[in-house]
Amino acid sequence: MNCKCGHKAVYFKRYSGQHLCERCFTRAVFKKFKDTIRVNGLIERGDAIVCGVSGGKDSLVLLHLLHQLQEKFNFNLIALAIDEGIKGYRDESIPFIRKACKDLDVDLYIDSFKEKYGYTLDEITSIKDRVGACSYCGVFRRNLLNQSSRELGATKLALGHNLDDESQVILMNLLRGDFSRFGRTGTYYKNLHPKFVPRIKPLREIPEKEIVLYAYLMNIDFDFEECPYAPEAFRGDVRNFLNEMEEKRPGTKYTLLKTYDKMFPTFNEMLTPEHISTCETCGEPSISTFCKKCEMLDHIKKNY
Amino acid sequence: MNCKCGHKAVYFKRYSGQHLCERCFTRAVFKKFKDTIRVNGLIERGDAIVCGVSGGKDSLVLLHLLHQLQEKFNFNLIALAIDEGIKGYRDESIPFIRKACKDLDVDLYIDSFKEKYGYTLDEITSIKDRVGACSYCGVFRRNLLNQSSRELGATKLALGHNLDDESQVILMNLLRGDFSRFGRTGTYYKNLHPKFVPRIKPLREIPEKEIVLYAYLMNIDFDFEECPYAPEAFRGDVRNFLNEMEEKRPGTKYTLLKTYDKMFPTFNEMLTPEHISTCETCGEPSISTFCKKCEMLDHIKKNY
Repeated sequence: MNCKCGHKAVYFKRYSGQHLCERCFTRAVFKKFKDTIRVNGLIERGDAIVCGVSGGKDSLVLLHLLHQLQEKFNFNLIALAIDEGIKGYRDESIPFIRKACKDLDVDLYIDSFKEKYGYTLDEITSIKDRVGACSYCGVFRRNLLNQSSRELGATKLALGHNLDDESQVILMNLLRGDFSRFGRTGTYYKNLHPKFVPRIKPLREIPEKEIVLYAYLMNIDFDFEECPYAPEAFRGDVRNFLNEMEEKRPGTKYTLLKTYDKMFPTFNEMLTPEHISTCETCGEPSISTFCKKCEMLDHIKKNY
Repeated sequence: MNCKCGHKAVYFKRYSGQHLCERCFTRAVFKKFKDTIRVNGLIERGDAIVCGVSGGKDSLVLLHLLHQLQEKFNFNLIALAIDEGIKGYRDESIPFIRKACKDLDVDLYIDSFKEKYGYTLDEITSIKDRVGACSYCGVFRRNLLNQSSRELGATKLALGHNLDDESQVILMNLLRGDFSRFGRTGTYYKNLHPKFVPRIKPLREIPEKEIVLYAYLMNIDFDFEECPYAPEAFRGDVRNFLNEMEEKRPGTKYTLLKTYDKMFPTFNEMLTPEHISTCETCGEPSISTFCKKCEMLDHIKKNY
């Protein structure tokens, strides 16, 4: 099958019925990324963008795309990696991050749980009476990403969540009835606290398989490994269901995302600056007197 | 395992961890039904309730429960069946309806597509250039239920949708992004048009398997047959997924329903009387100049 430009197609976009050649496909990904930024006003001239990088396909594709966009727009770009301290995993993904940043000539900063909090994730998971590894990791990583990007002078923190990630989270929140999480998933987070760096998700409308193909076609080396801490079974079930639905009705994930986005202003409006206070221990944004990170750290210290 | 009252349990409510004996189980179903009515103000003294009956488990259990409630409350109860004209199916379910109404001494009215619209559903599906049988059936049945219950003097139309039906529809609407349908699923429909009979769904929080067990324990004979017109494949996929999630995380369907209900006021408020007009052909409530039923009927007449 040929692309409409005449060249041999490398990809079939089922949800739009288009066959695309290599050039038209990579252009289409870049266009989707750019349009998401433009339509949602994610980046302005003069912004200082910190891109969170894990060494996986999503974050390294995001870094490449942001770097491409820099040629047209005038903004600063810095990469920020968080070393959670997961032996045999994170240490192996850091070389991919270093290589990508070197190739693109983007400054890289690496922060670690060990340095910041005193414990690696591997150490944290050795304590008795603990919750799931992903709970600690999520709280600590978000905290560190926010704090470090602020210290790097970021006006925005860019994250590589793709369409699959986002649609899974939306459905999980709906099935869990987790209202506190509504409004946390979106293209752009409101700035509700002076210490909060607004987060942007420019890949939010791009399906995972297009990210993989883009990385492959653009020769972006990334770490294929998945985190050894067991992924949540619930997410796996939701992912399988959405993949099956997408297979039968192309466009389902995108539709779910857009349905959520139409509802989102309502939930986002529920959150006002009064809902966000400041942690009395660390001074970071928090929804209660002490932030979740300080609460967890306290429990770890007592049980380590 | 025994019920907390000491009798042998016949049912285990996984989502609450309760083992229930026959008496406590049937009482719990009646209580859930009553609470749904009370909390949502579904029935008031002096109401004239028309109960839509299909001969299946849900509608006949609803009729029984409404009849029981009548002993405590003072309201009128009439049963209304719609004969769509589906050979080998509807004709076989009508005897179940007649028996239930006779046992309970409830007046029964039967209306038919043939008599009202001139065609049975079997005839409609023989036309060329047609949409799915369920599309015609849904539009015609809703139209006839509304019109006939109004003519019977109903102040409310009670329908037997259970928790499984409702949670499936909610997830289907989310995945289809069908905004026009948001606000159509709820415990109670606002009265937006003088010819619209408000619909109530008192079984909306009761799982399907509890309805089946209740029918069995209360000796309610119902038609087990499923409609021969192929059920929607999409609904089947959504049902399987929700059943699997419910199995793994008891309470998932209920949580989805409640999440939807918390969002629902927003969508219900989007609908105002200005959104509802009157069909210029038949005078029934419609969202456009001509109602969907008249549009379909026109197409059928031209193609029959």
